[in-house]
Amino acid sequence: MIYLDNSATTKPSEAAVAAAEYVMREAFGNPSSLHTLGMQAEDALQRARRQAAAALSAREEEICFTSGGTEANNLALLGGAAARQKRGRRIVTTAIEHASIEESARELEARGFEVVRVQPEADGTIDAEALRQAITPDTILVSVMMVNNETGALPPVEVVAPRIREVGAPALFHIDAVQALGKYKIDPAALGADLVTVSGHKIHALKGCGALYIRRGVTIRRRSFGGSQERSMRAGTEGVPAIAAFGAACAQLDPARARRAIEPVKEAFCRALLAIPGVACNSPENGAYHILNISAPGYRSETLLHALARREIYVSSGSACKKGEKSPVLTAQGLPPARIDGALRLSFCEDNTVEEAAPVAAALREILKTTAHR
Amino acid sequence: MIYLDNSATTKPSEAAVAAAEYVMREAFGNPSSLHTLGMQAEDALQRARRQAAAALSAREEEICFTSGGTEANNLALLGGAAARQKRGRRIVTTAIEHASIEESARELEARGFEVVRVQPEADGTIDAEALRQAITPDTILVSVMMVNNETGALPPVEVVAPRIREVGAPALFHIDAVQALGKYKIDPAALGADLVTVSGHKIHALKGCGALYIRRGVTIRRRSFGGSQERSMRAGTEGVPAIAAFGAACAQLDPARARRAIEPVKEAFCRALLAIPGVACNSPENGAYHILNISAPGYRSETLLHALARREIYVSSGSACKKGEKSPVLTAQGLPPARIDGALRLSFCEDNTVEEAAPVAAALREILKTTAHR
Repeated sequence: MIYLDNSATTKPSEAAVAAAEYVMREAFGNPSSLHTLGMQAEDALQRARRQAAAALSAREEEICFTSGGTEANNLALLGGAAARQKRGRRIVTTAIEHASIEESARELEARGFEVVRVQPEADGTIDAEALRQAITPDTILVSVMMVNNETGALPPVEVVAPRIREVGAPALFHIDAVQALGKYKIDPAALGADLVTVSGHKIHALKGCGALYIRRGVTIRRRSFGGSQERSMRAGTEGVPAIAAFGAACAQLDPARARRAIEPVKEAFCRALLAIPGVACNSPENGAYHILNISAPGYRSETLLHALARREIYVSSGSACKKGEKSPVLTAQGLPPARIDGALRLSFCEDNTVEEAAPVAAALREILKTTAHR
Repeated sequence: MIYLDNSATTKPSEAAVAAAEYVMREAFGNPSSLHTLGMQAEDALQRARRQAAAALSAREEEICFTSGGTEANNLALLGGAAARQKRGRRIVTTAIEHASIEESARELEARGFEVVRVQPEADGTIDAEALRQAITPDTILVSVMMVNNETGALPPVEVVAPRIREVGAPALFHIDAVQALGKYKIDPAALGADLVTVSGHKIHALKGCGALYIRRGVTIRRRSFGGSQERSMRAGTEGVPAIAAFGAACAQLDPARARRAIEPVKEAFCRALLAIPGVACNSPENGAYHILNISAPGYRSETLLHALARREIYVSSGSACKKGEKSPVLTAQGLPPARIDGALRLSFCEDNTVEEAAPVAAALREILKTTAHR
């Protein structure tokens, strides 16, 4: 099996599984219970919080665990906009965000906010000056992803905070760092970010856990009502097994090590796949080192994906979260329909190897030869 | 160890742990991925959905998995009220609901809804006629728990749907069945319920998973924005490990078997504990067979709880979700402050035995003798 769908989800690491098993079998108390068993669960929770905080260059009290990236993105946008709504209605984001940002933006439009979406260039990148100009003095919230999940484009998040200061906007700055965690150093303070979203199952932890970094001193409106868990920002008994796994996975992250391992893999795949006649690259020149989006125009993504899957090669046709739908990201890039319909995303982790490139390329060559154009 | 805090959380069963382990180690794909690994995860998800649906006498498409009972209760109240807000503003609930209902109700009041809370009788029960009278023709939402989490009171949920029909109210009917699942048969159709909340970690599954039953044909407003998971009602990659565990735990439920096992245990504890001088019962006469709330007036709950914990006997001082706060449920019952301050909740599961009653009673007798009154 060659698994090249790590941006959809990753295989849980042994450390992550072991952390979840410890909680399931031993520390199964309710962290809110006052007795010894509760404290044991609370300890597991606090350990995970320390580990997540370290991975995000954050303080423990700045970590709010959620059920995943979507909940964190929803909280950042809806909770952030609600907290600033008396100061303006303008929200700035990009046209290449994840569905959990775009759908939140639409919900905010329905509630009377104005959403400005910076369009990508033809290569999928976001122009720094276009992003800067979109941020006006009446902007209350800016949300930009750090790594695009479909193409690996790296929006210029570093220009946002200086621009907010420059124009004196009352804006919160949110970064969706789901595809960046573990691959790039995330330093909210250095980036001037108020809110940062991360997710466990993209870093070899479990589905069902993520976190929102909420900078100390920043207040957003909670969306969850009940107990006083997560400093009353996120009610409900904490999902300790998945949270413990998330912490354990965070403790193993090393972006420099990941780059050393993965960059040569992507280069090998680029060389092997782009040498196939008709195959084009949809990822930008200087995109993330772990995501490669290609097209075989004239073929349908799903046909190719299934043909590869029969050979135990697993790739994706775009974002897993928009099952079967036409990629809004590639559409925003203005790619021709045939390029969009034939897109494949390969996403790598440290388990992938340079040696996997040749058999995958051979399989794709064969499939393209034997498969009818649509 | 004698664990008597099963209403706070339960120890995951071997079947639940095994289901989670299978997903973590084997079926780790993203259920939305179109390839084989994705389909394997999707299969695990669908199996869990079948199992949860069977436990709730429901159809598979009526099960919406959430991150827990709190998220499901929030969705039922806020999503239900939003769906009916053009038809009225009146919401009926009780004064003994879980914090995730009460806090949602407060949020709805802040949004301009009127919330009527039926007060409990002195024994903690909700009077059927008082509940009926509260439901008026302009009521748009009724939310009543099936089993109270602190005292085991059993509100008369069966009178709600007939009353809604009788007065012709445009009301959705929600039942918080978190403490009832596995202990009592839950049949939403027979009860006329539109929405039913359940939670995994109260039935020997994992923290971090619950579900909202949404009756076919009933529309509520989603609170989650992103991918089209859970029929677009609940966006975000599904927490498959905890969901699979929840399904496996559901498959093992048998309320009749549970009652046979647990009812004698509660009776043994009642006999043993209420024979201790000064100990009073806060649970109603005909309450749930798995929850027993007692008080040792003149002592503080926390002192007793910690003294018991030192003997590896684990009980709670009320709802785990309101860590350290004075019980709003016992307060609503109108109990004297000394009874409230000295309350202990014992909650049982099928692992508890009649034989545990004597050592627990002996421990409590000794603690009361050697502990200073507050």
